[in-house]
Parts: sequence; structure tokens; C-alpha cells
Amino acid sequence: MNTALSPATTAAEVDRAARAAHEAYLISADQTPATRASWLTALAEALRAHDDELVGLAAEETHLAEPRLRGELKRSAFQLELFAEEVRTGVVLEAVVDHADPDWGMGPRPDIRRVNVPLGVVGVFGASNFPFAFSVMGGDSASALAAGCAVLHKIHGGHKQLALRTAEVVIEALAQAGAPEGLFAVLDGREAATALVDHPLVKAVGFTGSTAGGRALFDRAAARPEPIPFYGELGSINPVFVLPQAWRHRAEEILTGYAGSFTMGMGQFCTKPGVLFVPDEGGTERVRETLSAALADAPLAKLLTPGLRESFGQARDEVAALEGVETLVPGSDDEVPAPTVLAVDAEQVRKDPEVLHHEMFGPATVLVRYRDAAELPELAELMEGQLTATVHGDEEDDSTALVGTLTGKAGRVLFNGWPTGVTVSYAQHHGGPYPATTTNTTSVGTAAIGRFMRPVSYQDAPDAALPPALQEANPWGIARRVDGRFEPAVTEGARR
Amino acid sequence: MNTALSPATTAAEVDRAARAAHEAYLISADQTPATRASWLTALAEALRAHDDELVGLAAEETHLAEPRLRGELKRSAFQLELFAEEVRTGVVLEAVVDHADPDWGMGPRPDIRRVNVPLGVVGVFGASNFPFAFSVMGGDSASALAAGCAVLHKIHGGHKQLALRTAEVVIEALAQAGAPEGLFAVLDGREAATALVDHPLVKAVGFTGSTAGGRALFDRAAARPEPIPFYGELGSINPVFVLPQAWRHRAEEILTGYAGSFTMGMGQFCTKPGVLFVPDEGGTERVRETLSAALADAPLAKLLTPGLRESFGQARDEVAALEGVETLVPGSDDEVPAPTVLAVDAEQVRKDPEVLHHEMFGPATVLVRYRDAAELPELAELMEGQLTATVHGDEEDDSTALVGTLTGKAGRVLFNGWPTGVTVSYAQHHGGPYPATTTNTTSVGTAAIGRFMRPVSYQDAPDAALPPALQEANPWGIARRVDGRFEPAVTEGARR
Repeated sequence: MNTALSPATTAAEVDRAARAAHEAYLISADQTPATRASWLTALAEALRAHDDELVGLAAEETHLAEPRLRGELKRSAFQLELFAEEVRTGVVLEAVVDHADPDWGMGPRPDIRRVNVPLGVVGVFGASNFPFAFSVMGGDSASALAAGCAVLHKIHGGHKQLALRTAEVVIEALAQAGAPEGLFAVLDGREAATALVDHPLVKAVGFTGSTAGGRALFDRAAARPEPIPFYGELGSINPVFVLPQAWRHRAEEILTGYAGSFTMGMGQFCTKPGVLFVPDEGGTERVRETLSAALADAPLAKLLTPGLRESFGQARDEVAALEGVETLVPGSDDEVPAPTVLAVDAEQVRKDPEVLHHEMFGPATVLVRYRDAAELPELAELMEGQLTATVHGDEEDDSTALVGTLTGKAGRVLFNGWPTGVTVSYAQHHGGPYPATTTNTTSVGTAAIGRFMRPVSYQDAPDAALPPALQEANPWGIARRVDGRFEPAVTEGARR
Repeated sequence: MNTALSPATTAAEVDRAARAAHEAYLISADQTPATRASWLTALAEALRAHDDELVGLAAEETHLAEPRLRGELKRSAFQLELFAEEVRTGVVLEAVVDHADPDWGMGPRPDIRRVNVPLGVVGVFGASNFPFAFSVMGGDSASALAAGCAVLHKIHGGHKQLALRTAEVVIEALAQAGAPEGLFAVLDGREAATALVDHPLVKAVGFTGSTAGGRALFDRAAARPEPIPFYGELGSINPVFVLPQAWRHRAEEILTGYAGSFTMGMGQFCTKPGVLFVPDEGGTERVRETLSAALADAPLAKLLTPGLRESFGQARDEVAALEGVETLVPGSDDEVPAPTVLAVDAEQVRKDPEVLHHEMFGPATVLVRYRDAAELPELAELMEGQLTATVHGDEEDDSTALVGTLTGKAGRVLFNGWPTGVTVSYAQHHGGPYPATTTNTTSVGTAAIGRFMRPVSYQDAPDAALPPALQEANPWGIARRVDGRFEPAVTEGARR
């Protein structure tokens, strides 16, 4: 295998990479949308062209199943193409034009025009659990490049060979597409990680990982002489609430879906359902039997890393030891762990909500038995910020108050489905109140691009001094807001 | 004068106000856009109805001239009405609808719909220098209420009687308009200020003030168990660059405009031009004479507060004492200070750029003499982040490289004008890289509202469970992005 690429590992190497990245960003910021979009599509093509090799490396290092890995690579390539289209059509620029107006209500208004520009060099931390979609050319890298930024990517030690090889593919594709040298580089190791967050030329950081690790880096980014945005996706329990009528009509189907969702990828998803609220039936035998049967079919594998296995085992033991928590399906502590289901009464959770705050990153989950659906909003209120919250309800179930509470708690509210599996689209929001994420932004979907841009307004600028997106003739034909009214993009068809 | 209003001053009182505000926010979040907009227009009417009384109080406490204060009140009322319109038309909701799509490029897409919701209770700090536009019912309060949030406003000690009376007017107007009790309240004093930033129910803070004070509160907000966004507008030097041909053709006009801009409101503007780059003519007599003549007409007044007078005098002395800095127009240290103009060579600034980083909040400014316009981008690069940067150039002047550099340094780039005076509009951006602001957002203009909202997505929700903004029939007729295409608002005319 080819690992000619040598990642920056010392602070001095990070400094060199950051300076080169800054120079590349200055060039990138000046490109037309079409040019920048072409770099993204070149990356998509390169990932697809190397899919067998990259998926093979990923399977070896992560123990994740091949179909899952192929799906993840496909998603990453699609994401680049979708972002390319957002760039090409100018949507990411959010151009606004206010013409001079002598009659403006607060007094004469000058000509003011606003557009988004890239932030500069962006630091991205690779995640253990998504070797493609949240790693070298995952969502954070793709959105930062789409914004016009340069990217310094700190690879994750859990899939280092894959990361280095993917980086080679990326760097080669960018070079062939004509992107400036230094626009993308990789770093490795702890010294490089802190040097990255501290570097004055780094203007934002994207991170996916643990709450403890993410918070330490967030604090570091906030404490800089010039604080920078730290877009961290940290922990989430992803509660699921089953309402009485849905439970009565399809408990078995729900439990089977639940078993599939919390064991998917060995439970190593940020959206894994960690708590299921179900009506108390006065006994758990039926639930135990259904779950045991469903879990017998779950495809098992080793966890991503030995460190992750250790912290999973510890979290599972801690939650199991909480007062009132019983073990419904015992699971195991083996190298290939069997899934664990714990259970507790809602009454106990109200006394000590710790079970709702303690993430077990791996194949374990907790059932919470409630007496009355009217308790659910209050129980939901005990939770911290979440990436997702899910409601299973039938038409006769009244979920109004619960959905209201969950809107305040989660970034995505699902109905009669499962939170694992996050589509990349225009309306997606993958983020939520802390600790789900450190800011009110999304790390998935086209809205993720805006995290790496900032607005600039030009006042009374001569037309020639304006960026093309703001010039009076709208030479790129992009959608703009003009004097308060939204004007659609001039489609290519119409312009020809 | 009536000061029946008793602001919260202890942590316990802040806690009570925060709980009441949280309850009010829950009610506010559920209102239709039309209802929430009606509260904003009621506030605009109430401010106007009390203009004589409020302007009188403001003049007494701030020493600012009456026309300026009347203009500021007018701006604040207009701002409320402009924001009301953004709320009423649903622009602030940024609704996005992605229908389920079995053929979506990365695999079948569920139905996903996203909308902005209010953050919760917002803390706002009043500014010394804008008794209306950045105080009790200024930009931060107006945008937080427009977002659907509740507001706890920490009044500024520099105009306490005005703040308390304005708060009474605001609270009465909100009550008469039917807004929930507790939606707006005022706090006073240091204990209340820190309790506000620390309170778990407070979900964001808006601040306008000094870099030192703002940074301390920013650090506090970031260090909370649940960190919250701190939207701080701190310091800015607002450089102005005069290019050679503009200087040749209209030096006198430029110097006169400059004198008017840096002494406006006694130089107590965040956008005061603190540095003017001009060509080195081999002597400064002409400049001195022109400035002295222009400054002779400047209307002078006491500074806003004794504390501000002291820190202004200190900053002015510190900058004057920097190596190579000479005094062009001496000004004074009196209670009503005469304006000061300092001067320095660009060569010296390159050796020690401190003069470019040291804000003098008051009527003082620095001329920097450069030899060659080609130096300007490099000199601009020595500056920190700025709210504004201005270029004075004629057609023969080449400003391309300079404007490129300034785009990276400032939130607003002006041409042949002066940065003081900030219009409230759709395209306005009042913010910039740190220390101009602590985040890449604006505190002026309609885009300020979004700071106090966060997105929430709903996946596969039954239509009845969706907020009206996302329902299939679009009952509010708002503009939405549907399956990637932007669909305009249904105008009221069209709906009838």
C-alpha cells in the first residue's frame, strides 16, 4: 500500500501547512462559483474511482460491514456533488442588494449590498465512526471547500491508513482539477491537533467526537486571543417516545425496528436511539422476548477501536449500576459485544435523570416505562440537548405537547421512524442544543456550508469594484434579494 | 419623573425574571407571525408617542444633541416596524421543504422540513453611546423579540433614568398589545449582569461595549456548563484609505468630511474613523490648516460619562506617546474636549502597528502618511478585524488589491463616504472579524433576527403535527425553498 503522504505532526509542520493553506484560500476565494464547483465534482469522481481500494482499507481498519462502507462512500461523493450545485447556482452567497433610497423610513439609505465570503483556513477533525462521511472528505471538509475555504484535516487514529490514502486521492484530484496547492492537507497526532486549534490563520474548526474531547477543544478555541467558531458535534442520547395507541397496535414492529436501529453499525452512531419510552404493561416478559428475538438477527462485529470498547463497557456498567436500573437483555463484554438492553421506571428517572444523560456509545440502550402519556413532556424536559428525538404515535395519540417540548430539545424530530441514517438534503438539520452540538448549526446538509462563510457588505461601491455576485447586471444570474424582494436565479436555459 | 419600575439587581431577582421570561417565551413561540409582528409595531408606536419625554431624558443624561437623539429614536421605531414586516412575511422562518424522494442520489430520502424557532430567553446589554438604538428597545432587543424570544435587558448606568422610563413604556405597550407578562424585563448592576450571563434559562446574549468588558462576558458565556452564543460588538478602528488621485482632486473635501465624521457624537461611535491613510506630501501644513478650520465648526459637548472621559484621555495619551507619533491638532483634555489629530509615517507603523490597534473612544484620530499606494494592502493587513473600512478613490485609482484585503478584514467596506451612520436594511452587515465582533453575525439590519433563532427539522411528520410554516398547504403563504427551488411568498393580494 502506498502511504507516501507525510502528515504534519509537529507544531512547526502545522504552521507550514497553515501558511500554505492560507495562500491557497486567497486563490480559492477569488474563483468563480463554476470553478470551485468543478473541484468538488472532481473529488466526487475521484472517491468513486477508488471505491474498491478505499472500502477495502476501511473494512480492515474499522470492522464495519462492506455494504455500510460502500453506502457511506456513495453518500460522501453525492454530498460533494450536491454542494457543488449549491456553489454553482450561487445559493451559498446569499446575495442581497439594497439600492439607495432617499425615502427610506429612517432617513436616506445608501446603496448597500451583502454577500458571503469564505472564512479562511478551516481545521477539521476526523471522526472514528464515519471513516468517509465525517472524515477526510466528509461533511465538514466538503462544506468548508464549498465555502471557498482551505482545509487542514486532523486524521483519526482509528483508520489511519484509510485516512492517508484518501488524502492522497483528494490531493491528487484537486491538483488535476487545477485547485491551488495547499488547499487541503492532513495532520496527525496530539501536538498537531492543539497546534491546529491554536493557529492564528485557522478561522474555524469542525469536529465530530466525544463530549469530553470536543469540549476541551471548544474551550481552547474560545480562549484564543481571537476566538473562533468551533462547530462540534458531541454527545446525544436520541430519545424515542412510543405513545399508547402506537404501542397497542404495533409494539412488536416498533421493538424490532428499535433493535435494528440501536445495533446498526454496532451502535456507534451519534444518532443511535439510547432511550425508548414505552407504556408500563405491568411486566416486561413480552418486551424481553421480542427484543431477544430481534437481536438474535443483529449482525455483530468488533467495535471501532480498543479504546472505544473500553469506554463503552465502562459506560454500560455505570448505567446498569444506577439505582432502579435492571438488565432486560444482558448482552456481553466480549471483543464482539452482544447488545444490551437495560430498563427503568419513569418514576425512578424523575428522581434521578442521570440515565437520560449518560451516553453509551455502542450497542446498548435503555427502556423507560411510563404510566401515563401525560408524563412524557415532563420526562422529555429532563433531557439535555439532542441531535434527534423521535415520536411513535398513531392518529388517536395526542402528541402535541410532546412535540412542542421536543422542538425545544432536539435539532431533528422524527415521526414513526428511526434516527439512524441521516439524509443529506436542503432541509436537513444535524445539530441541536448543547451538548448535541456546540453551536446552533448543522454538520449535515447544504446548510452546513454557511458555517464557513461570513457576510460582507459594500456601501456605495462603484459597480466595477463589486464582486460579480453583487454587480447590478447580476452577471452570474444568481438568486438575490433586491430591495427586500426575492428574485429567482436566472436559469441557464433562460440566459441562453 | 416616574420610576416605579424596579429592575432586578440581585441574582435571586434575575432568577425570578428569567423564569417569568421563559414562561413568556413559551407563549411567544406559539404565536402566529401576525401576532408577534403586532407587538413590534405597538412598541414602535409607543416609542414615537413618548418621543418628547424620552428624548428630553436622554439629552439630560448623555449630553448628546437633540437632533441626533430624535434621529436615533426614529431609527429605533423604524427598526421595529421593519422587523415586524420580516416576521409577518415569514422571511425569518427560512422554511425549507424536502419531499420524500425514492430516487435521491444517496439513497431514498424521507420527507424532511426545516424551520427556525426562537432560542428562548435572551440577555441584552445596553450600550453607553446609543441610548435608544443599542439600549432598552434597540437592535438586540428588537431582533430577539422578532425572533420570538423573551428579553432580559441589563440597563447601562450612563442613562439609567431614560432606561427605566423606556422600559416602563415598553412593558406597558407589550401588555396593551396582549403580549405575555414577563416577555421583557430590565436588570441593573454588576451582580445582575453576571447572573444574567450565567443563568441556565438564558440562551444567548447581545452586547455592545468595550473590548475588555465584552471579552470578559464572552469568556463567561463560553465557560458555562452549557455554552451560549455571545453576540458582542466590541472595538473597531475603522480605517479610511485615501488613494492618490482622490487625494489630488479633493483633499480638502475629504479632510472636511473626515473632521465631521470623527467628531460626530463627540467621536463616541463604534464606527468612528480612527485612522486616515493619506499620501505623504512631504509636509503636513496644508492638512493641519484644513483640519483645524473644519474642526473649528465641530459642535462640542461633554462625553457620555466621567468614566468614558477618563479612559478616552488615557487612550489618547498612550497613542500620542507611541514612537514616531506627532500631534497635528492638539485638542484638549477638558470636560468638553477639543478634537485631537495625531500623525505618523507608514514606515513607523510597519515597525510597530500598535497605533492601528489602539482604539481612542472619543474625538481623536490618527493620520498615517504613506509613500506609495502599493503599500496600502500590506498596511491594511496589519489591522485587526474591523466593523468598517473605507476607500476614497477616483476612477484612475486602482483599489482592487486594497478592496480584496479589506474584504478579509472588515464587515462593511465603504466607498467615498464615511462609516458613521449605519442604515437599518436587508443588506446591512454590522459586524466583522474579532475584535470588531465576537461572531460572524450582524447586530444591525434584518439579518440580526436570525441570531436568536435555531433551525429544527421534522422528518416524516404528519401534516397536522407540523408547524403551519411547514404544512403542505403553506397556510401562511410564506416564501419557502421546496425540493431545492425557491418559491416566493403568496402575496396577500394574490391570496384574496
